Amino acid sequence: METKPGPNAVLLDEPESRHRLATPALIVDLDTLEENIARMAGFCEAQNISLRPHAKSHKCIEICRRQIAAGAVGICCATLGEAEVMAAGGIANILITSPVAGSTKIGRLAAVNASIPDLIAVSDHVDNVEALNAAAAAVDETLKLLVDLDIGQNRTGVTSVEAAVEIALQIDTAPFLEFAGVQAYGGHLQHIPDYAARAAAAEEASTRLYDVIEALAAAGLEPVTVTGAGTGTFEIDTKRGLYNELQAGSYVFMDVEYADDALWPDGGPLFDAALFVQTTVISANRPGQATTDAGLKAFATDGPLPTIAQGAPAGAGYKFTGDEFGCVILSPGEDLALGSVIECVAPHCDPTVNLYDNYHCVRGDTLAEIWCVDARGKY
Amino acid sequence: METKPGPNAVLLDEPESRHRLATPALIVDLDTLEENIARMAGFCEAQNISLRPHAKSHKCIEICRRQIAAGAVGICCATLGEAEVMAAGGIANILITSPVAGSTKIGRLAAVNASIPDLIAVSDHVDNVEALNAAAAAVDETLKLLVDLDIGQNRTGVTSVEAAVEIALQIDTAPFLEFAGVQAYGGHLQHIPDYAARAAAAEEASTRLYDVIEALAAAGLEPVTVTGAGTGTFEIDTKRGLYNELQAGSYVFMDVEYADDALWPDGGPLFDAALFVQTTVISANRPGQATTDAGLKAFATDGPLPTIAQGAPAGAGYKFTGDEFGCVILSPGEDLALGSVIECVAPHCDPTVNLYDNYHCVRGDTLAEIWCVDARGKY
Repeated sequence: METKPGPNAVLLDEPESRHRLATPALIVDLDTLEENIARMAGFCEAQNISLRPHAKSHKCIEICRRQIAAGAVGICCATLGEAEVMAAGGIANILITSPVAGSTKIGRLAAVNASIPDLIAVSDHVDNVEALNAAAAAVDETLKLLVDLDIGQNRTGVTSVEAAVEIALQIDTAPFLEFAGVQAYGGHLQHIPDYAARAAAAEEASTRLYDVIEALAAAGLEPVTVTGAGTGTFEIDTKRGLYNELQAGSYVFMDVEYADDALWPDGGPLFDAALFVQTTVISANRPGQATTDAGLKAFATDGPLPTIAQGAPAGAGYKFTGDEFGCVILSPGEDLALGSVIECVAPHCDPTVNLYDNYHCVRGDTLAEIWCVDARGKY
Repeated sequence: METKPGPNAVLLDEPESRHRLATPALIVDLDTLEENIARMAGFCEAQNISLRPHAKSHKCIEICRRQIAAGAVGICCATLGEAEVMAAGGIANILITSPVAGSTKIGRLAAVNASIPDLIAVSDHVDNVEALNAAAAAVDETLKLLVDLDIGQNRTGVTSVEAAVEIALQIDTAPFLEFAGVQAYGGHLQHIPDYAARAAAAEEASTRLYDVIEALAAAGLEPVTVTGAGTGTFEIDTKRGLYNELQAGSYVFMDVEYADDALWPDGGPLFDAALFVQTTVISANRPGQATTDAGLKAFATDGPLPTIAQGAPAGAGYKFTGDEFGCVILSPGEDLALGSVIECVAPHCDPTVNLYDNYHCVRGDTLAEIWCVDARGKY
């Protein structure tokens, strides 16, 4: 997973180097990243709730280290491949938030569990629990397991209180499994733009979680960990008092999607954009537009379009004009010279990061560090 | 650019291994790939036209080698980073189809030009031509250059006959540049689904190219190479007699986008789908649907949705339910067991390939080879 730092390494520590990168290049503003990490850590400490940031957003060992140094109990990974990379990078406490299925992957899960002090997996099916126990037995290492609960997204997770209790009991009695609690992530809630509407939807979703916690306690299986929430609901979910661990990930970077959501009751921006894509004008032959080198292989295309943070006149827009081409849309009479450098806010941070080998970490206008996107494409 | 073959290497040559991969996994059907490569090579040979397949579709040295072995004159790359990888991999004849701008990248372009026998770049601006000449002079190696011509896409390229002639003359008289001809790619034409409508639009676009060729000839600058066309227009552009080199790329794999287009006058499929994404059912708790491990980080999201090629009941659909989650939509009463393996046709091949480290090359049901996506994310 060690990757070369790429063609921009020659610019490290050079004055004004931020604006001279070979593009498209992924940029992290270190001051803002540090501020975002500190703010979330401070919030969780003040609320006396554990923070386990989701590494699927950044896939970067160095950012995991910084989050843990700031107080996080560990990290989340979305995939087994991410967890393998992070474990090999020295991260000792990892929750894999997706069910792991298929004999090849279940074997690998047991192996990575045996390699670090604390790995936690999730399951939502009795057949899967059985296979996980068998794989843990094969390497003689107990696996901690959460029951994955559906609270309304209709994706993974058990769909009834009865199924949750059944699986928890199965885990509790399996010789090589340890019942660790419940995961309840409401992905469908994260991007409801209005705070009050999001809070109301989260309240409704939480009734499922409440019922499961009650039923588990009645069965003598009080969940040690109740984990969930994202950047859109962490503050709301904390208030409800059901969770003791938050999984938010996008807060480290923010993006165009989250910038549109009111994360806080007063709507104020709690975190600032720390992730940008830098691109260069490679063709400028038409009035009112300029063609750049960052197209749909340089940005996530599942969400909103990129917005322009700097380098173009106010009001300029961005659109994709091909796999490797973007277009800055200017007002009539405006133009951008060939070679002009533009920085865009990433449209959806997680899949944007997954398109790059490296982060170019800037301090002001200077390229200060280059970090690897270590778990890029690791499934 | 040498990448580890990944966790599925243990399955090489095992019977039925195609259906036991750790997923999501990119699959290439070797029989179909070879047939597609041979068909396009045969077509170009019969038409006495050069083929220079676009490597942006596959980013794979091994596939370049096979295309050249089948008769291609060389390859196209969309980015300088791709060209660097391919040159280091032994590919000697490379056309970079996008203008290269910015001093860092222009210096790298001159360096890679000095490292292989035949590199060709494109330009559409006098300032860029001047910078390219200076960079070529600095390494004392002449650079071949095409004038990039806009034939209606409004992206890169010169927009007038006069500008084309001006730049061609500038190249011709620059001491370290060689005028190599014209590039005219009509990206806006490739996905007009109806053959006759696409042919009519291509005919209209070609008048711009015709006028430029005439004007260049009148100025004593007959273009040696006239290059362009894609999988959607190669047959039409060949008939028009203006091009002597085709740049089609997607034909090696095909995808959901091109499967909807009538590539041939009789509408028949000239090439077959060779590229698939394999995914596994990781949650099956709801009637009429199953959750898989291939979401919007496993497929291009700019085009149509993936279609299911095998592993699910006829009529099943696919949708994204998150970065790492997909959903197979089944008819009422149907279900798919946990661990079921599904293969989807890639929705848009180029940006789908860019999400993976490796190709899993299958011969029938056996994993026969693993190739690297060598130029993945190389900008």
